[in-house]
Amino acid sequence: MTTASVDVDTARADYAALVDRGLSLDITRGKPSPKQLDLANALLALPGDGTFKAEDGTDVRNYGGLKGLPELRRIFAGALQVPAEHLLAAGNSSLELMHDAVVHALLSKVPGAERRWADEPRVAFLAPVPGYDRHFALTERFGIELIPVPMTGEGPDMDVVERLVAEDAGIKGIWCVPKYSNPTGVTFSDDVVKRLASMTTAAPDFRIFWDNAYAVHHLTDDEPALADVLALSAEAGHADRPFVFGSTSKITYAGGGVGFFGASEANLAWWTGLIGKRTIGSDKVNQLRHALFLKDEDGVRAHMRKHAEIIGPKFEAVDRILTEELSDLASWTKPTGGYFVSLTVPEGTAKEVVRLAKEAGVALTPAGATHPHGDDPADAVIRIAPTFPELADVEEAVRALAVCVRLAAAQQSL
Amino acid sequence: MTTASVDVDTARADYAALVDRGLSLDITRGKPSPKQLDLANALLALPGDGTFKAEDGTDVRNYGGLKGLPELRRIFAGALQVPAEHLLAAGNSSLELMHDAVVHALLSKVPGAERRWADEPRVAFLAPVPGYDRHFALTERFGIELIPVPMTGEGPDMDVVERLVAEDAGIKGIWCVPKYSNPTGVTFSDDVVKRLASMTTAAPDFRIFWDNAYAVHHLTDDEPALADVLALSAEAGHADRPFVFGSTSKITYAGGGVGFFGASEANLAWWTGLIGKRTIGSDKVNQLRHALFLKDEDGVRAHMRKHAEIIGPKFEAVDRILTEELSDLASWTKPTGGYFVSLTVPEGTAKEVVRLAKEAGVALTPAGATHPHGDDPADAVIRIAPTFPELADVEEAVRALAVCVRLAAAQQSL
Repeated sequence: MTTASVDVDTARADYAALVDRGLSLDITRGKPSPKQLDLANALLALPGDGTFKAEDGTDVRNYGGLKGLPELRRIFAGALQVPAEHLLAAGNSSLELMHDAVVHALLSKVPGAERRWADEPRVAFLAPVPGYDRHFALTERFGIELIPVPMTGEGPDMDVVERLVAEDAGIKGIWCVPKYSNPTGVTFSDDVVKRLASMTTAAPDFRIFWDNAYAVHHLTDDEPALADVLALSAEAGHADRPFVFGSTSKITYAGGGVGFFGASEANLAWWTGLIGKRTIGSDKVNQLRHALFLKDEDGVRAHMRKHAEIIGPKFEAVDRILTEELSDLASWTKPTGGYFVSLTVPEGTAKEVVRLAKEAGVALTPAGATHPHGDDPADAVIRIAPTFPELADVEEAVRALAVCVRLAAAQQSL
Repeated sequence: MTTASVDVDTARADYAALVDRGLSLDITRGKPSPKQLDLANALLALPGDGTFKAEDGTDVRNYGGLKGLPELRRIFAGALQVPAEHLLAAGNSSLELMHDAVVHALLSKVPGAERRWADEPRVAFLAPVPGYDRHFALTERFGIELIPVPMTGEGPDMDVVERLVAEDAGIKGIWCVPKYSNPTGVTFSDDVVKRLASMTTAAPDFRIFWDNAYAVHHLTDDEPALADVLALSAEAGHADRPFVFGSTSKITYAGGGVGFFGASEANLAWWTGLIGKRTIGSDKVNQLRHALFLKDEDGVRAHMRKHAEIIGPKFEAVDRILTEELSDLASWTKPTGGYFVSLTVPEGTAKEVVRLAKEAGVALTPAGATHPHGDDPADAVIRIAPTFPELADVEEAVRALAVCVRLAAAQQSL
């Protein structure tokens, strides 16, 4: 990458013209678009008056059932790579399950722990960067230290991870989005998963927070296989290491889906013992609704192809326009699934690009959001979330973004 | 009460005949019956295909909205005595909101606190007894000490409460079910609420956990008014003292309802700041479903009258049979709302009654469940939950219970 070709006067004129257009566009968050949500509108009238029995005869309208409906857990067992009997269906969010996993570990010893995390002198998590801001915010809220680890094209840099966890017993966890990672789109290689599952950790109660948010969110027919972290961990003698999370937030409804938690027998006994003090069961009506709508694993697959038809062209547009406009200045990922593109602009200009875009009416995720404490030391990474706006707006927003990148680069070269 | 009239041989013969009948009945938990759940079956097909916009235009299918839908909060503002703008609609359970309130107070300073509860040398709650076992279990799970306080016919014994909270800064809260209390059915008098709101507490961060679970759950036309704890606390200069909880679990569906949290401005700012790290919004589709079904405060009232028609006769049957069978031996409450009857048997016999009933095929809530750590020092209180079984089964179960009470009393007098 070079900034040599950027002509300041041209960049300024282009930006002035952009501002004059008075745009109002938003590519900040990984939200499904209305058209994607429409795909699941049958849910709005399900399970249907008179339908309230689960397959085992449970009246879903009443109290009970800490594990969730077996028929729904079975549908997602394959995609989330957790045997149905070890997969729990819960409320409308996996983020809250991750939050609660941290809370429970803080306040009640996880299997294998010497003490509660709240009683540890120090608790740290590894944070592969660029990564997901909500993961970081969740752990920061509890005063948990975040240690950045570089992401590579096949997952976190395992040489760094292995060295850190081997020597530091304060490191209790690592955040992972193993498939179509937020925001790089990288799927962890078999080697990375195997090393995560088998590495030696100084902490006896180390946990992999395996946020498999995009397990079935393919954009193309090339569907990368992800190694089975639960099975590999068990084989390596670390059965209790992974906490697996997933949800239908970007399959059915972000506001009314179902979250999942999967783990070893010992972890599940710990978990259900604790959540049994908190709830008399999650929303089983919504779980039945989802089971009736999605039917089976093939039903999920067919449904996700409809999503890909809607959002695939948006990702193609991002790549096409960035190629046309910024090949000489920036680099970006070309994900085949998930919700994000990660754009790397010249060092020291990301914040300025976001500021310029905002002034031109284009909202971007704050620069730095992909790093712990919102601090990207290189000030170079910008996350693009193209799913929510209409295709024409995505195109317009990315063209506008390119104008801002060119101006920021030009200003820097002055 | 006297045990003088119990003839041992008759009691034994009656019990033997009871056992011979091989009953299988359950009056343990406060669960709505299938007929009650049927009242809300329109929910199963709501909001209906094509209906997904809240009144403010929000697409309920997508992410967002930590406070929940305004139209649903407005419907319950009156019943829960919380201004709609200070009332949040959340997931399917108020128990989880109470749990999370304790968690958040443990891990992040509540308004007015000198430190996090996790950093206090000791945290205690007052537990009016008899009370609700799930409240006790929730606090016990975090190592919070429970200090029993006697319930009177108008709420907790305020002379005891005022003395304890004035002298002990370790007491951070009190569990209250202020209307149709679990299990006594008592509604707190105006004087009790006023004293709770205005009393001097040694702890600057004392909280009233106001579980208004039965706010609209009247069995008769005599609907007792409950004093407004939020308003009275604010008047007394303790605006941040109450945390108010409620839910539709026993209005619509126990397994698919909506929970509510109400509090002062400062408490809500604290709460939303914390839950914003945990969730991107609760299930707004279910909130819209409820708003469309219940419509307004009158809709709730009309709906609750249908519940009363179903469960009122069950409560009448309990009182009638206890009057016929146990007037000489026991006393019991005659609630005009809520879900429970509290039966007081001769001291030292409650555990034996529950054991005898179990052997005769009648499941009762374990004796002692109404007290912290399951320990009723007098071994005298049994909670009766008559809502779930059919009327004929309630009658049979209470007659069986009476046989067990007579035998236990007779054995004791030997």
